[in-house]
Amino acid sequence: MSNIDLRPGAEFDVVRRLLARWGDRADGIGDDGVLLSGFGRGSLVVSTDSSVENVHFRRDWLEPHEIGYRATAAALSDLAAMAATPRGILLALTLPDGWKNDLDDIADGIGEAADECSTRIVGGDLSEGRDLTLTFTVLGNAERPLSRSGARVGDRVYVTGKLGSPGAAIASLAGGLKPSSIHRARFAHPVPRIREAQWLVSNGATSGTDISDGLAADLENIAVASRHGISINLDRLPTVDGVSSRDAAASGEEYELAVTSTKALDVNAFQHEFGLPLTEIGTVEAGEAGVRTFDRGSAVETPQGYVHFK
Amino acid sequence: MSNIDLRPGAEFDVVRRLLARWGDRADGIGDDGVLLSGFGRGSLVVSTDSSVENVHFRRDWLEPHEIGYRATAAALSDLAAMAATPRGILLALTLPDGWKNDLDDIADGIGEAADECSTRIVGGDLSEGRDLTLTFTVLGNAERPLSRSGARVGDRVYVTGKLGSPGAAIASLAGGLKPSSIHRARFAHPVPRIREAQWLVSNGATSGTDISDGLAADLENIAVASRHGISINLDRLPTVDGVSSRDAAASGEEYELAVTSTKALDVNAFQHEFGLPLTEIGTVEAGEAGVRTFDRGSAVETPQGYVHFK
Repeated sequence: MSNIDLRPGAEFDVVRRLLARWGDRADGIGDDGVLLSGFGRGSLVVSTDSSVENVHFRRDWLEPHEIGYRATAAALSDLAAMAATPRGILLALTLPDGWKNDLDDIADGIGEAADECSTRIVGGDLSEGRDLTLTFTVLGNAERPLSRSGARVGDRVYVTGKLGSPGAAIASLAGGLKPSSIHRARFAHPVPRIREAQWLVSNGATSGTDISDGLAADLENIAVASRHGISINLDRLPTVDGVSSRDAAASGEEYELAVTSTKALDVNAFQHEFGLPLTEIGTVEAGEAGVRTFDRGSAVETPQGYVHFK
Repeated sequence: MSNIDLRPGAEFDVVRRLLARWGDRADGIGDDGVLLSGFGRGSLVVSTDSSVENVHFRRDWLEPHEIGYRATAAALSDLAAMAATPRGILLALTLPDGWKNDLDDIADGIGEAADECSTRIVGGDLSEGRDLTLTFTVLGNAERPLSRSGARVGDRVYVTGKLGSPGAAIASLAGGLKPSSIHRARFAHPVPRIREAQWLVSNGATSGTDISDGLAADLENIAVASRHGISINLDRLPTVDGVSSRDAAASGEEYELAVTSTKALDVNAFQHEFGLPLTEIGTVEAGEAGVRTFDRGSAVETPQGYVHFK
């Protein structure tokens, strides 16, 4: 294995700095999860993901059980991104005194996400600290793991679900407004697309990712990792009512999947199976590794993703 | 698998509260690491371990490369405790702005610990936040994993190395004094006993743990998990010069191993192989699950362990 190319940006600059320092002590970095061979049939997939108070969530935006649920679901979504079946969750919890009364509710949210993905909590670690931090490590099996680096020139680009609600909810909350109930629900209760990912890889997906940083940003991860261009058409994006396609392409905290596929995917069969749209939104092309954006045939600026790490 | 009995104490009260809430959604909790079957020959062992600024370390006590090294070594020590061979490290890093200039040095320390245990960094996650936090997830293989729960009545109890330096170093630092160079070195640069653990399990160890919470506290973990009593003799403890056996039994941040074994272990062969003492210090006995302490034949109070989580 070797490390995967990373897109530009401050978060990845820090990762690049670490990788430069580590040299060949680091290996296989850059995908949604880690693939480890030598652990039986298929591959072992592992991913670690932190949710930090006032960075990834705010106490006044979500209920404690929602904070537990979302943090767990966000981590499990990285297994979906790799088309892995969850096998266990570890939680490293930093629990400030001021959150101790909320522990049961947080635990309930974590348990709900584990149930949602048919998996269990198998280990963890507990620390004191100033800011509530939930760091989940998720483990899974994948017979045919999806990677960010498998896109081929000519592939079609697809996205699951309807985009825009988390971004709209965050914009409302950040402005001191109450989000609409639909935006809030989709923000507070993302569903990791575990079974959907397995359908997609069984039907020929060549690369994939979840779009937690926003569709445009995460497609750039695929473009850079695969070393091809990706063109997307804003006018084809599946959006929730009341959100522009540009905002939907930038909306972070989405836990839908974006995949590429050489052959056309049967979007009707997908919709029938999961009650969720699957929409063709672009193509993989030769040329500079990056995302090009079009709106009704005209080139437009590519929306920025949702950046936690500034 | 089921959960392992946990000793009394505030940290474990929080874990018990989580387990009560999770019910059968939690499984296999309570050992140094998690054992997962179904991943090929032997078992997959996973452990997660956080080091939080001002909880597990202080900026004025250690150099940045030592902070990186120690946090990594502490996590890898959990693989040693399970007699596992390290296969990879994931790092979830919360990096405050005020630490960004130290990133290269922290990375060097992490890399040094990876080298020490012949493993590599295979993934991670990066967040902003107020307090530097390094959460490591370590993965390993174990053909014959050690557990805390395997001690049998009549077993002998052994500990590796010489105890007391980390506790002495912390006591000096906490009092505003400079620790002696030997205490400081052992505090700043613990060595995960990976190969030693494999020797111990090959030679018949029935249970084991690292003693990061202190010898007495971690032997209580074995006693409670195995549902037997453990008697230790303070006068037999291997201590560094200038540290009392009582302080040595309480000294936290030790990364030596304590094991039980039905047959006598060849302590000379161990010393010859690793240049490290292996010392018989007690026995496993029928009766109440807990640690009883003796000093030259007289019962004395059992020393308390080092508690992060008050």
